[in-house]
Amino acid sequence: MLRSDLPDLQNLPVSTTATGAGWSDLPGRYRRIRAATRRLAEPLSAEDCCAQSMPDASPVKWHLAHTTWFFETFVLERFARDFKPFDPAFRVLFNSYYNGVGERHPRPQRGLLTRPDLDTVMRYRDAVDGAMQSLLAEGRAGWHALVELGLQHEQQHQELMLTDIKHLLSCHPSWPLYRPASTGTGDRDPWDSPAPSRWMEHQGGLVQVGHAGEGFCFDNEAPRHTLFLQPFALAERLVSNAEYLAFVRDGGYRNPEHWLAEGWDWRTQLALESPLYWRRGPDGGEWQEFTLHGAQALMPAQPVVHLSYFEADAFARWSGSRLPTEAEWEVMAARSVPAGGPGPANGHFAERAVLHPEPGDGDRQLLGSVWQWTSSSYAAYPGFVPAAGAVGEYNGKFMVNQYVLRGGSCATPAEHIRASYRNFFPATARWQFTGLRLARDLR
Amino acid sequence: MLRSDLPDLQNLPVSTTATGAGWSDLPGRYRRIRAATRRLAEPLSAEDCCAQSMPDASPVKWHLAHTTWFFETFVLERFARDFKPFDPAFRVLFNSYYNGVGERHPRPQRGLLTRPDLDTVMRYRDAVDGAMQSLLAEGRAGWHALVELGLQHEQQHQELMLTDIKHLLSCHPSWPLYRPASTGTGDRDPWDSPAPSRWMEHQGGLVQVGHAGEGFCFDNEAPRHTLFLQPFALAERLVSNAEYLAFVRDGGYRNPEHWLAEGWDWRTQLALESPLYWRRGPDGGEWQEFTLHGAQALMPAQPVVHLSYFEADAFARWSGSRLPTEAEWEVMAARSVPAGGPGPANGHFAERAVLHPEPGDGDRQLLGSVWQWTSSSYAAYPGFVPAAGAVGEYNGKFMVNQYVLRGGSCATPAEHIRASYRNFFPATARWQFTGLRLARDLR
Amino acid sequence: MLRSDLPDLQNLPVSTTATGAGWSDLPGRYRRIRAATRRLAEPLSAEDCCAQSMPDASPVKWHLAHTTWFFETFVLERFARDFKPFDPAFRVLFNSYYNGVGERHPRPQRGLLTRPDLDTVMRYRDAVDGAMQSLLAEGRAGWHALVELGLQHEQQHQELMLTDIKHLLSCHPSWPLYRPASTGTGDRDPWDSPAPSRWMEHQGGLVQVGHAGEGFCFDNEAPRHTLFLQPFALAERLVSNAEYLAFVRDGGYRNPEHWLAEGWDWRTQLALESPLYWRRGPDGGEWQEFTLHGAQALMPAQPVVHLSYFEADAFARWSGSRLPTEAEWEVMAARSVPAGGPGPANGHFAERAVLHPEPGDGDRQLLGSVWQWTSSSYAAYPGFVPAAGAVGEYNGKFMVNQYVLRGGSCATPAEHIRASYRNFFPATARWQFTGLRLARDLR
Amino acid sequence: MLRSDLPDLQNLPVSTTATGAGWSDLPGRYRRIRAATRRLAEPLSAEDCCAQSMPDASPVKWHLAHTTWFFETFVLERFARDFKPFDPAFRVLFNSYYNGVGERHPRPQRGLLTRPDLDTVMRYRDAVDGAMQSLLAEGRAGWHALVELGLQHEQQHQELMLTDIKHLLSCHPSWPLYRPASTGTGDRDPWDSPAPSRWMEHQGGLVQVGHAGEGFCFDNEAPRHTLFLQPFALAERLVSNAEYLAFVRDGGYRNPEHWLAEGWDWRTQLALESPLYWRRGPDGGEWQEFTLHGAQALMPAQPVVHLSYFEADAFARWSGSRLPTEAEWEVMAARSVPAGGPGPANGHFAERAVLHPEPGDGDRQLLGSVWQWTSSSYAAYPGFVPAAGAVGEYNGKFMVNQYVLRGGSCATPAEHIRASYRNFFPATARWQFTGLRLARDLR
Repeated sequence: MLRSDLPDLQNLPVSTTATGAGWSDLPGRYRRIRAATRRLAEPLSAEDCCAQSMPDASPVKWHLAHTTWFFETFVLERFARDFKPFDPAFRVLFNSYYNGVGERHPRPQRGLLTRPDLDTVMRYRDAVDGAMQSLLAEGRAGWHALVELGLQHEQQHQELMLTDIKHLLSCHPSWPLYRPASTGTGDRDPWDSPAPSRWMEHQGGLVQVGHAGEGFCFDNEAPRHTLFLQPFALAERLVSNAEYLAFVRDGGYRNPEHWLAEGWDWRTQLALESPLYWRRGPDGGEWQEFTLHGAQALMPAQPVVHLSYFEADAFARWSGSRLPTEAEWEVMAARSVPAGGPGPANGHFAERAVLHPEPGDGDRQLLGSVWQWTSSSYAAYPGFVPAAGAVGEYNGKFMVNQYVLRGGSCATPAEHIRASYRNFFPATARWQFTGLRLARDLR
Repeated sequence: MLRSDLPDLQNLPVSTTATGAGWSDLPGRYRRIRAATRRLAEPLSAEDCCAQSMPDASPVKWHLAHTTWFFETFVLERFARDFKPFDPAFRVLFNSYYNGVGERHPRPQRGLLTRPDLDTVMRYRDAVDGAMQSLLAEGRAGWHALVELGLQHEQQHQELMLTDIKHLLSCHPSWPLYRPASTGTGDRDPWDSPAPSRWMEHQGGLVQVGHAGEGFCFDNEAPRHTLFLQPFALAERLVSNAEYLAFVRDGGYRNPEHWLAEGWDWRTQLALESPLYWRRGPDGGEWQEFTLHGAQALMPAQPVVHLSYFEADAFARWSGSRLPTEAEWEVMAARSVPAGGPGPANGHFAERAVLHPEPGDGDRQLLGSVWQWTSSSYAAYPGFVPAAGAVGEYNGKFMVNQYVLRGGSCATPAEHIRASYRNFFPATARWQFTGLRLARDLR
Repeated sequence: MLRSDLPDLQNLPVSTTATGAGWSDLPGRYRRIRAATRRLAEPLSAEDCCAQSMPDASPVKWHLAHTTWFFETFVLERFARDFKPFDPAFRVLFNSYYNGVGERHPRPQRGLLTRPDLDTVMRYRDAVDGAMQSLLAEGRAGWHALVELGLQHEQQHQELMLTDIKHLLSCHPSWPLYRPASTGTGDRDPWDSPAPSRWMEHQGGLVQVGHAGEGFCFDNEAPRHTLFLQPFALAERLVSNAEYLAFVRDGGYRNPEHWLAEGWDWRTQLALESPLYWRRGPDGGEWQEFTLHGAQALMPAQPVVHLSYFEADAFARWSGSRLPTEAEWEVMAARSVPAGGPGPANGHFAERAVLHPEPGDGDRQLLGSVWQWTSSSYAAYPGFVPAAGAVGEYNGKFMVNQYVLRGGSCATPAEHIRASYRNFFPATARWQFTGLRLARDLR
Repeated sequence: MLRSDLPDLQNLPVSTTATGAGWSDLPGRYRRIRAATRRLAEPLSAEDCCAQSMPDASPVKWHLAHTTWFFETFVLERFARDFKPFDPAFRVLFNSYYNGVGERHPRPQRGLLTRPDLDTVMRYRDAVDGAMQSLLAEGRAGWHALVELGLQHEQQHQELMLTDIKHLLSCHPSWPLYRPASTGTGDRDPWDSPAPSRWMEHQGGLVQVGHAGEGFCFDNEAPRHTLFLQPFALAERLVSNAEYLAFVRDGGYRNPEHWLAEGWDWRTQLALESPLYWRRGPDGGEWQEFTLHGAQALMPAQPVVHLSYFEADAFARWSGSRLPTEAEWEVMAARSVPAGGPGPANGHFAERAVLHPEPGDGDRQLLGSVWQWTSSSYAAYPGFVPAAGAVGEYNGKFMVNQYVLRGGSCATPAEHIRASYRNFFPATARWQFTGLRLARDLR
């Protein structure tokens, strides 16, 4: 009965393998995840929450309301006793893409929804949370998978709230900050030059990719299947600001040799000279970077972030390497981290959710640092079968002209990250936390 | 030293004939006009004041700040003792068009200025008003004309605040109201059919047009000069909703015969079928109109409003008449109302500032009802001389591809209306309070 | 029964005052004018005649066929005995704007009409000319005015053939020539610096403008009517290349102070730095100009040509003058040349039709040199009455957002030029032979 | 030293495995292929050969000259004794994409190149062919691979000449024909309903794809490599007009359920209702199809052709199937036809080069009927290594946002078709001879 909400909620529609294991914990998870969303809005004024900086982004208030609409429409309306909508008009206003629910407000005009105001949206959240807690306390059957889906959906929107507010604030000439930086972002000095990256090798042959095991996954991660790979190597860490700056200084943005033809046309038309949030200081000074903590000088050892696919690909070609395929990335990640998620060692990402990507700290930055562009066009896995009914209606609707990203970012909730997760965006998208890791053939 | 602020502030730059007469009253006028601006924002939330519905419109918060910036930049900075800017960044953020002041924020992105928030802008107004009152109390010479210009500028923005907020609210699917209607909008029933309009005749010959006398005027109203007119007649009242609805029902929007060729292409591309704020009720029911009081059924005797030049011209051709020239309009208005302004008899417009245009009440609706499109392209009067210095830098910069409107509207402050006033907009503009009065040749 | 063909045939629809005087000569005029059209195509290949360089221009082959279609459709079909269409498909293919005739081929795709080929179109002309000569020999009544209209129409297209082919050839990187220059373009040396221009003064007062007398005119030239003018002066000659080059060298295209706001935006978006057909020689050398004789070094004493309204207006402001109104131009021209046309003294224009504008030769260049932008928006004269029936259907359809040009050009047939003639184009049009004459107020 | 010419010449740059085997035959092949190109232009007038119907297409004259330019620039200029260019200006005019050669004429303006005329271009071909025959007779070493590349390049342009001229003629309201149909298009009646298609099964497992053996291939067909496939089935024949018409009649173009989200937006914006060259007969009658033989009634048993990827994908989803991957297509084709090409049994395609796709005649239509969309995004094969030097400069430059097509079409020269050949176009392209074959999973 669910349909997708893309690009807000790209790959939600089908939850295939979520098991009952974690469902005894659903009331607690519900509380924690809903509260985390609300905390993301705390540093913001009502005006900050209302504005929309581009059609691809949504206002924070809209995210707050839409994630609530999801539970009201798909769970409460069908399972709650004596259901009454909080406000019938919200059915249209906060619908994202679900045609079956009826009309929806045009996406590029979400920033014009000054009504309801932020206070009303917060009361909407309170009301729906109250009704949900009652329902969850009942323990009736049938809606667990839907609630789990709603929580996964909400976690996707948590990341989008951060990327969208970052984009909005970046449009202000003063580059205001979202939240002050906490002190001590790691045990390594981000101002150091990064150590040279080494290569992790894989001998190729028959491998398995796709989601395995019991946890939740989206339908596009299944079925797990066999592939034959050639021998390859992945860089041990992400490409750093220092390395990317060398590309910029080498005239990387001025030389069509490094670029895909379509990427070159795009770069030329927009006159791009650097990643999205870089700018030179006053009087052509040193490069600065806009972060959720405001402007800061470029830190050499940090992973470069906010690249399009075209830029990531151009950098890779300039450096004599290439982007990895998503299968290469996944089998290498499966070696290093448990398939089910980053585990406790990555728990620190949750606290860092609003920090800038951590400095290159010597670990492999596979999960939770920046999304890593792969060379793989987003497509169905072999044997992919859309779910029956409306849940599957939009499966695969977005499987064209988009490229897969892997690994999650510092803005992704830690428990939402896993090695089989497939994020995807068009080759021009830059406002997500997107970077790259190099690959090469072994022979 | 002043430059224009168009389209926010179209014809401000040169105040040629303001006399010292009213300047003893400047502190009082300053207080009243600045307070009136603030009252216009009272029904609105911070979110309402921040959003921008299209590039031609500005957020209410921006109007509140920009009109304040005007006094800070052009008066206080030059004349106040120990001047310190409230916030130096505002110099750029709230500059509209004045190149000499330096950079300015791109107009289409004014809605992204969530910082400063509304409270801060109100404190900005308080601070500047305090400093201005001190200055006005001093009675030094030199700045009176600039203050008068600032007040005229502010009155122009009062009208724009109303048209811009009306446009924003109209983009919300629920058509929310700005302010409830007051009861009793006149002694005639707006639901009546309007009485047939009669013609006011003029025998032509040598006439004088342009501003005369002592009050303030903008430079484009001068010099007063002689013209030779052919005999003509103007309708005694504005075209009503009932009459315009007859045009719609007669297929007026489907028949290219009535339209200018460029107007027909415009209408066809946008698939227009009615004035800007008309829509049919549910299930193809009766026509409704969006007003600052929310949706209401179309009132037959009201003047039709929110027409483009193209629609006004098409209606006139369909009805066998034509639009008046601005000279015809002005000489006829000069007969009916004092050249200096509507005078006390029109004082009621001030209270009605947020009301919908009044019903056809039998008077001639020459001033303060709706802006009336004329067939005159906006151009310099013969002998027009740009003022010396930067004040005149932008004189006439907008004298191309725009058409003159006369008469002021229900949203124009009453004391800001006068018969010689020349408003102007492109032929496609519809979000101002724009309607029409018919004219014909006499022979 | 006739409708317009704009922008190919802008102001044709109504021929109000053509008298029978010249009609005894119709067969001869028909032969001469039709032959002149054909001569214009002689230097061109079939491929040259088929291509369309922009939506505003038409292929030469289309002009050849459309002018023939006019006689076939409006004269032969109604008056010839045993009329049979040459090819019924031509009714659609070569209709320009006449809705009553039925469908028409989309204007921007005229260049894709490779069928019929040029030979077939020439046979079409032969066939229609034969039938027309038979009809003209009969001497029946009723069609004389239509034939006269068709000939005037054809003369308008003669000029468009030259401007459209010039634009096409200019798009070729080698700037090929249309026809070699004849030797001896005048008794003055175009390489000389032009002598300073003097002013012709007029004391203003009541004047008459509009077509007077017996010859043919278009409806927009009538009625003749009275105006009151302020004292003014017009320059004795057109602005020269040398003068315009001084504007370019003074940074005229880089300084917004000289430009209308809309003109500045237009110039900036297109990054314009000079008139349409100017370019620098190799390695940033001297300015060259593309002409129908190919590239040639800029001749200082020639009138500047191929300016938009925006450029003409910016030059005038830079030079401390202004553009004349069309009334000022007309009353001054009426002093210098007979109202009925340039007369024998201007007969040399006919032979020069494909030459570049003549050097500044000391005469006043009022007629037949370059079209002269006026500051007058194209609008109806007072008392303008559309003709009854379809002939008048499109009268005035183009009277918005266009500016009037006066005087004819070197590409206008000499007998088609008269002082009351009103040409009009949008403010951005540059591919016609358009220049300017300065004006100023007298006080 | 060679660079690509895309989209004219998409995947030319690297010829990796062409052997000397066929080079003894080079003079003969050169003569035959060059003559075949010339024959394609025979039915066309100079005007037909000059026009350009859209930016993606080129004029026939341009193809004739550009393929000649290739031999002049890359072979004669480097290897011929006493080389003199035919016309130095052609170096720019007929360069397609090769930056190293210098400037090039803007692609969307190729239709404005009325000079040189067609006769001159034919003399250009004669001159270069003469010089090439001399060179080929010499038997010197070094240029054989370049000549082979030039001939492969020319064969690609032969197909483009047909698709581009078809598009141009389709823009003419009369749908003129390119060449009359020959009688007898097969032994089956194309008006029959097609027999139901059956499935060809493959059990999956480890397979090899990519070019093998000795013949010429482009670099993107290499290296041959191992893949692991799941069991699958391909339809025994192409989707027919009858089947596609059922999709149209079932509302396939009105139901977003069948479409990729981006495809639906594209379809909606262009208001598409059928394949590119379908239209209804007069008064909403039966469907007709534009072919190189002119309009003809839709033949049910013919393969549907001129579909975008989006339409092919929507049809497949509507029918409960999917598009094949390029690997599935290739391994199935390898079973049915020799890897080196279609062989003598397909020789008839050469004669049919300008015919419409043959009726469904019971064979498997794998090669030479219509290009078959696959679901595979165009990407590098594992281990792909760009050739050294400029030849490889543009390798892979187009490997983004395009989809692979397989099988060649009725417009592809028979000897140019092979099972490993990878054609590619954006998902919206429709003017090539593109259709589809269904696939499904086996389990």
